[in-house]
Amino acid sequence: MSAALREAEKAYALGETPIGAVIVKDGNIIASAHNMRETGKCALYHAEILAIHQACRVLGGWRLSDCDLYVTLEPCIMCSGAISQSRIKNLYFGASDPKGGAVLSASVQNADGLFPQTNCECGILLEECSTILKNFFKDLRDGRFNKCK
Amino acid sequence: MSAALREAEKAYALGETPIGAVIVKDGNIIASAHNMRETGKCALYHAEILAIHQACRVLGGWRLSDCDLYVTLEPCIMCSGAISQSRIKNLYFGASDPKGGAVLSASVQNADGLFPQTNCECGILLEECSTILKNFFKDLRDGRFNKCK
Repeated sequence: MSAALREAEKAYALGETPIGAVIVKDGNIIASAHNMRETGKCALYHAEILAIHQACRVLGGWRLSDCDLYVTLEPCIMCSGAISQSRIKNLYFGASDPKGGAVLSASVQNADGLFPQTNCECGILLEECSTILKNFFKDLRDGRFNKCK
Repeated sequence: MSAALREAEKAYALGETPIGAVIVKDGNIIASAHNMRETGKCALYHAEILAIHQACRVLGGWRLSDCDLYVTLEPCIMCSGAISQSRIKNLYFGASDPKGGAVLSASVQNADGLFPQTNCECGILLEECSTILKNFFKDLRDGRFNKCK
């Protein structure tokens, strides 16, 4: 999760909502990415999606069934679906996202249906994962970033 | 939807599950894609994801709020999330997918929560959209394709 947080910091520096993700296989980080929606001008460029794309490239196939994903914020519906589609084995996330999160949130009926093949654990480095987002949105309100909203 | 069906036919010819999608803006098709999960070796390469990616590239931004998406099969959770994330205005799909579909299925609690900014209409060219899938899976059972499963 520390490596995912470092990815989140890279997003922060770009004025992107600071969310980072890494994918681990056999104890090694095989993919790492951060949110790039604004900079990359694409709705799909969440940290998890970019990391999954990278991991599929590295492994040369679409099944990530021996991989774990660490992400600093609870995944949204799109990313949760992508985690499920790619058969990620274990999902670890830091802060929960009561508004947009799909793992603990009310928008998806049950985690079993969403993740038939993925175990999920939350609250990893919770304070750090929450703090980076809080600081970012404070900076944003203070006008530090000129984001295209 | 006819153009989306033509995309599905391209997937069929590759031995990919035949699902096609197009994105329309101001009456023009700005993106068209078909399922490429096996050939592209990536869990993300559903028709809708590839079409959304293409449309963001064409328009130079992540908001597809003046765009409509036509897809031959009811979108899964990942694609439904991507449609929501990209602010697609209208979603039209052909066949429903009782197993993996997230728009009418039981896995997502309500379409309002999933698609706050997207209208949804289903059953467009239903027979054609269903038939291409049925034919494909019959071919698959008959051993016409040597798919890596």
